[in-house]
Amino acid sequence: MQTQGKHYRTVWMEGGVVRMINQPLLPHQFEIVSLADYHACAQAISCMVVRGAPAIGATGAYGMAQAVLAARGDTWLDQVNDAAKELAATRPTARDLFNAIERMRTVVAGAGSFEEARRLVVEAADDYADSSAAACERIGTYGAELIRDGFRVLTHCNAGWLACVDWGTALSPVYKAARQGKKVFVYADETRPRLQGAQLTAYELCGEKIPHAIIADNAAGYYIASGQIDVVIVGTDRTARNGDVANKIGTYEKAVLAQRHGIPFYVAAPSTSIDFDCESGAGIPIEHRHQDEVLYVTGRDEEGGIRRIRIAPDGSQAFNPAFDVTPSELVTGIITEKGIFKPGDIAANEFQLRAV
Amino acid sequence: MQTQGKHYRTVWMEGGVVRMINQPLLPHQFEIVSLADYHACAQAISCMVVRGAPAIGATGAYGMAQAVLAARGDTWLDQVNDAAKELAATRPTARDLFNAIERMRTVVAGAGSFEEARRLVVEAADDYADSSAAACERIGTYGAELIRDGFRVLTHCNAGWLACVDWGTALSPVYKAARQGKKVFVYADETRPRLQGAQLTAYELCGEKIPHAIIADNAAGYYIASGQIDVVIVGTDRTARNGDVANKIGTYEKAVLAQRHGIPFYVAAPSTSIDFDCESGAGIPIEHRHQDEVLYVTGRDEEGGIRRIRIAPDGSQAFNPAFDVTPSELVTGIITEKGIFKPGDIAANEFQLRAV
Repeated sequence: MQTQGKHYRTVWMEGGVVRMINQPLLPHQFEIVSLADYHACAQAISCMVVRGAPAIGATGAYGMAQAVLAARGDTWLDQVNDAAKELAATRPTARDLFNAIERMRTVVAGAGSFEEARRLVVEAADDYADSSAAACERIGTYGAELIRDGFRVLTHCNAGWLACVDWGTALSPVYKAARQGKKVFVYADETRPRLQGAQLTAYELCGEKIPHAIIADNAAGYYIASGQIDVVIVGTDRTARNGDVANKIGTYEKAVLAQRHGIPFYVAAPSTSIDFDCESGAGIPIEHRHQDEVLYVTGRDEEGGIRRIRIAPDGSQAFNPAFDVTPSELVTGIITEKGIFKPGDIAANEFQLRAV
Repeated sequence: MQTQGKHYRTVWMEGGVVRMINQPLLPHQFEIVSLADYHACAQAISCMVVRGAPAIGATGAYGMAQAVLAARGDTWLDQVNDAAKELAATRPTARDLFNAIERMRTVVAGAGSFEEARRLVVEAADDYADSSAAACERIGTYGAELIRDGFRVLTHCNAGWLACVDWGTALSPVYKAARQGKKVFVYADETRPRLQGAQLTAYELCGEKIPHAIIADNAAGYYIASGQIDVVIVGTDRTARNGDVANKIGTYEKAVLAQRHGIPFYVAAPSTSIDFDCESGAGIPIEHRHQDEVLYVTGRDEEGGIRRIRIAPDGSQAFNPAFDVTPSELVTGIITEKGIFKPGDIAANEFQLRAV
């Protein structure tokens, strides 16, 4: 999408170097970082320089390409397998990451030789990123049909283009609808603790000139209950076979509220984020992150620098679950690049949804 | 309660000067401010130097006492009425404030002369504060019966002693239960946008040595759904005749979640915060505060100073409703200084609840 007056993807590869937008600096500073090897890619994922399931997937694919290019000697395949393990261990909830790594391992396994693997991997990673971006655009095309002129959309966290390679998942329908000439207003949950809504979703919406307001996560219930939200659209990191979805902490709260007030609650997700081997949300491990994400907040100080401040007393601890699971009964539909599915229809459409 | 190794109330009067804990500096700095006249009291309320319905009420009473002491000449009663208007206009949702101002007007009206009014007002304001503190302690005694040994209590915002003159409302049962030797663990919602949970509730719990964890408001649903909360106790700024309660934005979300998972949801409130003239929550005006409370966060920087940082892009606006209404159907009981009432029994017990 457009930012800084130019089209950018969130992550790409140039001459063996992985380049990505440094997302923790947004919305205050725009910076591109260069990652020389797969260790740097793994660190970028675990430190959330890049975040969002599809963007993490693409980073994993590029990291695997770097691992193959950097491998040396007879043990090259062991080295690549070590890289796969290191990359996969960075974010235990991210299904797309595992898919991307497996796709790259399949390319490597299918190559007749180390030399051929080296020749194939960069194009394979680019293909992964291209198909991910194209899938997100199709999610937008399907999802835009749900947005009528004048709709007010509530979203949680950032499932925009910054979370993907391009277009986004939950925000892609908003961008498509706006380009179709529909008036859309977005309520963006700020999404504590990491504030991806206030920092990233709002940044994207500014860039695309979509009218919007940031709200405290606590205010979503007020706006839903008072009839000021027409539809909720969120992303997901992983969808189980039964249609349960794991997404950013707080998603479950908004889904419960939407159901209570009869507001449709849609989850936008590339089909690659569906884990058919996971029977239900109970099987999705919930990542608990460092308490400092709750105890501190990062933003721009009056001098324009990026600064971290502590909001809590020194004697207090915090608990920090990063995801929650929204049961399928609360999900109106799952918007994929292959169409919109009821969560209960995921399993029945496995063949279609798994097809590449 | 105890802080800084000494017993403090949140607000008191010394020789015509109103003194209070400067709450926006907590938990990072402990400072007492002196308010020379009722204008300063009104400003302290509207700037939230003092907050919480009972503490605001006491500040209103002391401000009225200052207004009487400062009035001059034949128009003294007009000057006092002007003060009442200025004080009442500071926080439109705070029922206790209106009660306190009315109590002081009654004292003034009942005095035979300006001289007698001047003699009576400081003691009347002190009486108001004393009875408010005693009511909070009784709330704790009733509420502690609901807390069993080992209970995990979720609370929202700060309805502790810092919100009152002493003891608190929602936290008073926790303090009483802990003094009865029960093990209690408190989950404190951080409570964006103003972070009263992370900053004030956590500060109080540190001082009273109650084990606790701060959580993002988004995480409350996860802990409720996963069976890690035994009871929710919150405060309220105003309760309607039908048992609907207005409280800090986000309270409604937690109440909906508690009901869904069969967790008791209690509201702790002095009976003075019940507005029998207000038929239902629909009649409670919702204050919308400045967007900067959402767009900025205040905390302690690495050098120990208190600093405000911006979390959002410059091009974004925020919406900031300060309260929401929780309908009585979601409220298990209202813990008052006169016992615990079902919300539907409020109207039937009007005589008892109104009695001084």
